[in-house]
Amino acid sequence: MPSAARKNQEDTRASMEAPPADDYSKERYGVLPMIQSQEKPDRLLIRIKDLTSEKADEIVWVRARIHTSRAKGKQCFLVLRQQQFNVQALVAVGDHASKQMVKFAANISKESIVDVEGVVRKVHQKIGGCTQQDVELHIQRIYVISLAEPRLPLQLDDAVRPEVEGEEEGRATVNQDTRLDNRVIDLRTSTSQAVFRLQSGVCQLFRETLLNEGFVEIQTPKIISAASEGGANVFTVSYFKSSAYLAQSPQLYKQMCICADFEKVFCIGPVFRAEDSNTHRHLTEFVGLDIEMAFNYHYHEVVDEIADTLVQIFKGLQERFQTEIQTVNKQFPCEPFKFLEPTLRLEYREGLAMLKEVGVEMGDEEDLRYLQKLLGRLVKEKYDTDFYILDKYPLAVRPFYTMPDPGNPKCSNSYDMFMRGEEILSGAQRIHDPQLLTERAQHHGIDLEKIKAYIDSFRFGAPPHAGGGIGLERVTMLYLGLHNVRQTSMFPRDPKRLTP
Amino acid sequence: MPSAARKNQEDTRASMEAPPADDYSKERYGVLPMIQSQEKPDRLLIRIKDLTSEKADEIVWVRARIHTSRAKGKQCFLVLRQQQFNVQALVAVGDHASKQMVKFAANISKESIVDVEGVVRKVHQKIGGCTQQDVELHIQRIYVISLAEPRLPLQLDDAVRPEVEGEEEGRATVNQDTRLDNRVIDLRTSTSQAVFRLQSGVCQLFRETLLNEGFVEIQTPKIISAASEGGANVFTVSYFKSSAYLAQSPQLYKQMCICADFEKVFCIGPVFRAEDSNTHRHLTEFVGLDIEMAFNYHYHEVVDEIADTLVQIFKGLQERFQTEIQTVNKQFPCEPFKFLEPTLRLEYREGLAMLKEVGVEMGDEEDLRYLQKLLGRLVKEKYDTDFYILDKYPLAVRPFYTMPDPGNPKCSNSYDMFMRGEEILSGAQRIHDPQLLTERAQHHGIDLEKIKAYIDSFRFGAPPHAGGGIGLERVTMLYLGLHNVRQTSMFPRDPKRLTP
Repeated sequence: MPSAARKNQEDTRASMEAPPADDYSKERYGVLPMIQSQEKPDRLLIRIKDLTSEKADEIVWVRARIHTSRAKGKQCFLVLRQQQFNVQALVAVGDHASKQMVKFAANISKESIVDVEGVVRKVHQKIGGCTQQDVELHIQRIYVISLAEPRLPLQLDDAVRPEVEGEEEGRATVNQDTRLDNRVIDLRTSTSQAVFRLQSGVCQLFRETLLNEGFVEIQTPKIISAASEGGANVFTVSYFKSSAYLAQSPQLYKQMCICADFEKVFCIGPVFRAEDSNTHRHLTEFVGLDIEMAFNYHYHEVVDEIADTLVQIFKGLQERFQTEIQTVNKQFPCEPFKFLEPTLRLEYREGLAMLKEVGVEMGDEEDLRYLQKLLGRLVKEKYDTDFYILDKYPLAVRPFYTMPDPGNPKCSNSYDMFMRGEEILSGAQRIHDPQLLTERAQHHGIDLEKIKAYIDSFRFGAPPHAGGGIGLERVTMLYLGLHNVRQTSMFPRDPKRLTP
Repeated sequence: MPSAARKNQEDTRASMEAPPADDYSKERYGVLPMIQSQEKPDRLLIRIKDLTSEKADEIVWVRARIHTSRAKGKQCFLVLRQQQFNVQALVAVGDHASKQMVKFAANISKESIVDVEGVVRKVHQKIGGCTQQDVELHIQRIYVISLAEPRLPLQLDDAVRPEVEGEEEGRATVNQDTRLDNRVIDLRTSTSQAVFRLQSGVCQLFRETLLNEGFVEIQTPKIISAASEGGANVFTVSYFKSSAYLAQSPQLYKQMCICADFEKVFCIGPVFRAEDSNTHRHLTEFVGLDIEMAFNYHYHEVVDEIADTLVQIFKGLQERFQTEIQTVNKQFPCEPFKFLEPTLRLEYREGLAMLKEVGVEMGDEEDLRYLQKLLGRLVKEKYDTDFYILDKYPLAVRPFYTMPDPGNPKCSNSYDMFMRGEEILSGAQRIHDPQLLTERAQHHGIDLEKIKAYIDSFRFGAPPHAGGGIGLERVTMLYLGLHNVRQTSMFPRDPKRLTP
């Protein structure tokens, strides 16, 4: 902070801290000393979302941020904000407030935190700009708890403005780097509050569903001694006098838990990819919702379980997070997320056939990665769903541990799942036989010495099993119809960003 | 695996796969082809825990591991195991089983996975060694699903034997390194199954309690650009052409979420400490259950919330995991975990006074870290609780961001929580004022440039807040009265161990 700005702020604070002695309301306002837990008053603070006409004429205390303020003659109008809720408040010269008090209130910098005491008053005309439309607060006391610096790096109102409105009306919006550089402020917007509350809900619903199904939550290590799959795209860590790697997925550990008889496991944790991809959907660190499960006879037992879990998440979000969905939609309008029950499952070759119908010719063993959005649109048109499973990928495009299809040597028991045409999960039946696993690793040219521990895990009896990993940020992004995974990662990491 | 052993196994498999043609029960046993999801039979597999006398005389299919087998004349007794449950089974020469079939069953290596069909029969005398004591299974068909190698690196029965029994009776037990080196097998024991099911429960109860209290779950990055607190004990990561660090705690990010108005947040995730400590309670990677919360006037609002959360966890474990607790107690006997409601809160100076009473003289600002077990014993004697809070630590022994006590400049608004005399949580009111934070950092000789982003987070209005971090593995260890944190980490990491 430049020293001039700081000097200015200190002057403000000094003048605020010493009200003139002849002021009849001087006890009713001011900057309080920093809260160091000096006392435990039994004052009840009311939540802004509870300020409704039922509380009319009550005197209440509220702690909130100054969202906006506007002085007008002998009055000052404030909007007080608490998370996604806000209420209009008024300080007017009168019995409770002197001219100096109104000036004091008008001078408090936006985003400062204040304690106010006021009377709840019904209003005759609904207040359009606030979530609490039926009442306003007539302030009788106002104290600053924490003062914000007067120049904000971004304005919250700009940060929630829909792009199109900004463009059409020539009003400011905030670009992504400014948001991320000042994430503490950007996260205060109603949109961000809603996005990350809903994301918390995704994790909660994922776990609720699986715990109900008898899954056990496991914790897997992130520092590992050997890079699986040949060591591409892996971060190296210095580990005392040696070196180690960051886990690219918890898969080996999930599988070890299956070999250790936990039968159905899940974990939620960071996964690391040292991939120099600068796209809307790649991060170098993201959160994986991982599942692994022993099955009896067919890996579709697992596919169904995973798909049902996602369906439970979609339904739970609809039921419990309607407010959040609508809040995000105000800034980023999109169609509601559609899904079928049971989930649509197409085979890879059916996907290729649909693409062929619109003129895209591909070989049977080619990777349709770059056509997934197009295929998603075709599936949506034909089946009216934003969520589907693509099953039976060509063996050639999947990792060495993928179980080959017993009926077709070019095919495999593997699947991806898609939301709005983008991949959110990749999974497969894994090879549980050490001999076949060794053969497949050799076929892929993988150094057997490096994956010895992995292969050895299957030597003492291993049940058939399958699983998959879901990208949390992608699920949130695609459910809400957002367009960049950085909007759904609180503190995103990519090849160019490591801060804040 | 030595090639002789492998040769041997392949011979066994070959002989098992080709039963003699003149065998009248040759269709009733064998090694099945690897399950590659060839078919979806509608066979119902019964869980071993459901094999009770209610099922007497029913014919059932079960998939299980061969826990033990013992051939005896024309019969073979098996114990079939499924997680922590097991049942006795019998193959006897007769209408359904030929001599060859009995021999086949007897030759299946321990830990192999089999599908068996059998009749459930009530027994006249309870079977002492099994969890299903009232029935046994008379096998009519037996097929190997996955064959274990014949020589196990450790025996499950040895791995659950109480140390004292091993010593007194000269019977084998398994040492920790052997367990950890062969974790896939060690995790199959009833003790391990119970420990990690209970640990999953700790996480579940932690989240249930906090979500009910209006907390939001957050995800914080593990790769960070700057090492806070001066850079000691931090792991370095190579990050594309630059370098980065692994987060030693999510604290900065939790605090940023508080400054971003989330008010009450928690997260569960790995934390990394590059500390060369080889003790029973240190890991280089462990799981943190972290809480951060804005409060109104006093940090005890947060202390109470955290302590209540732990109490809810203790109660929930008692209610929902009694079987697991008893299973662990069989191998590791210990007193039941005791706690008070409300939680006992002592001040640091009271702790010192209790130590003084038994002859330990310490200065007021000294760190009692090395005396915590002794103090725990004194507290247990006096108050009959295994859980308590030690409040008001000397400012000198806490990190720079700890809020000083406004009434006593040598004291701070900080606290630790203890289970059975060992620290499981450290926390404090944090300084939310950038000016005081700057002063305290300077006092600690910290380079302000390195923590600029941290300090800047508080410049735009910050509510008073406090929090803390709980070590998951320690909670599980101490609740169960275990003695090494490696028993409660599935795949522990320490300065000398990075595998499996």
